[in-house]
Amino acid sequence: MQYETKRRSILKAVSWRTWATMTTAAIVYMFTGRFTLAITIGCLEVFAKMGLYFFHERLWHRLRYGKKEIPAFVVWFTGLPASGKKAIGDAVYRQLQQENLRVERLDSRDVRPLFPKTGFSPDQVDAHIKRAGHLVAMLEKNGVIVVASFVSPYRSSRRFARQMARNFVEVHLNSCVEACEGRDTQGHYARARRGEYRYFPGVHVDYEAPQSPEISIDVDSLTTEQAAQQVVDYLKKEVMSGKPRTAAAQKPATAAATRNHLQPGSTS
Amino acid sequence: MQYETKRRSILKAVSWRTWATMTTAAIVYMFTGRFTLAITIGCLEVFAKMGLYFFHERLWHRLRYGKKEIPAFVVWFTGLPASGKKAIGDAVYRQLQQENLRVERLDSRDVRPLFPKTGFSPDQVDAHIKRAGHLVAMLEKNGVIVVASFVSPYRSSRRFARQMARNFVEVHLNSCVEACEGRDTQGHYARARRGEYRYFPGVHVDYEAPQSPEISIDVDSLTTEQAAQQVVDYLKKEVMSGKPRTAAAQKPATAAATRNHLQPGSTS
Repeated sequence: MQYETKRRSILKAVSWRTWATMTTAAIVYMFTGRFTLAITIGCLEVFAKMGLYFFHERLWHRLRYGKKEIPAFVVWFTGLPASGKKAIGDAVYRQLQQENLRVERLDSRDVRPLFPKTGFSPDQVDAHIKRAGHLVAMLEKNGVIVVASFVSPYRSSRRFARQMARNFVEVHLNSCVEACEGRDTQGHYARARRGEYRYFPGVHVDYEAPQSPEISIDVDSLTTEQAAQQVVDYLKKEVMSGKPRTAAAQKPATAAATRNHLQPGSTS
Repeated sequence: MQYETKRRSILKAVSWRTWATMTTAAIVYMFTGRFTLAITIGCLEVFAKMGLYFFHERLWHRLRYGKKEIPAFVVWFTGLPASGKKAIGDAVYRQLQQENLRVERLDSRDVRPLFPKTGFSPDQVDAHIKRAGHLVAMLEKNGVIVVASFVSPYRSSRRFARQMARNFVEVHLNSCVEACEGRDTQGHYARARRGEYRYFPGVHVDYEAPQSPEISIDVDSLTTEQAAQQVVDYLKKEVMSGKPRTAAAQKPATAAATRNHLQPGSTS
């Protein structure tokens, strides 16, 4: 959906002509030793070639050859409550934005208000994560990079999100319950311990840590910026370079089938 | 997120040189009448300028000047059940796809399975349409054109979707209940009349026709292809050309505020 304006082609023609005519005049002078001839030929060339360059640019503008897209991907942060998903996700999002990439940020806190009746029972959390999986896959399919952060405590729902996406990078923010509880400035753990919440990961239900995430970050020993840098470095090296990853190659064939089944209008 | 490969720059350099050197040689011959000199200068130029052209291309590749995006938009089909939303929407989607545009298709039938507990009471339909509004706006914000088709019988929920989007094109498929019932091969109207459905638009609840849609189509007198063509013609003339539309200019200022409020991570 990107296009180049005629004004860009005109400016390129002028810029090219400045350099090219000086080269031509120099060559003519070298061979003939006649300064006036070199200048005359250079001047005539300016007009003839500037027009030619413009039309050459417009012709190439119609050709898609050699115009490539940086493949989109999903960065999925998972970890205990207060393990730093929101902060590190925000930092990664900002860095990707600065690269002029098309990128969307999805945090559980932004998505839940859209489904106000979604609770926190294992079934409801599973449905919530699967919906998020559909959403990130739809964005990714359309060339949008997604930085997602959800506690997503259950392996099965994270596996679903991975299968929906084409290029899924799971980032596990590794920390123990005690450290997260110590970091929790909003008092969620305290409320969970007082029984105001049920099913709180780390308190009432197990957080099922990923077995083979693409990235595992030891959040207790890193600052937010250091952790974000680790993620961005991985993305630049392993994902944005466009070279195939092992994990992607091992992706089960059912992923595409699931996507096609649920979005019949958008398969082609 | 688009980039140009080095191979494209090399091919452009060769293509340009073919035309440009022939021009130079012709000019030199015109002025000197010396055929050999013209050919010699032409040959030397080939090598000097091909390299120059390549580096000139790579330099311009770094400049974003004059590279523009076709603005994304939302085409929202609304109309009674069996008024042709799915078929006409699919036809418009296919035509836009053929233009190499980034386009997503969202039909009510594809979205409802994601929220299996959403019923058809006015409140639930309103919530359903508002969720769809969030979804289309998120896609549009990221440069994706969306072709959406929902009965969306209530004005207030359609207004919400319009306010979420930046560039909203409402297409009303205009037809009476009798004509739609006659077209309904799936027997939905019959089931509604037998009382198997409640809140069926056109039978139990009013379908609130749009008061000022961007496009109103008299579906009873047009084929699916003709109707789709009307929509595509409007889009090309009024939306994809990039010129400001009156409706967009009149958009209430609250639209941006609502979006920012709900997606705090993606405002910039």
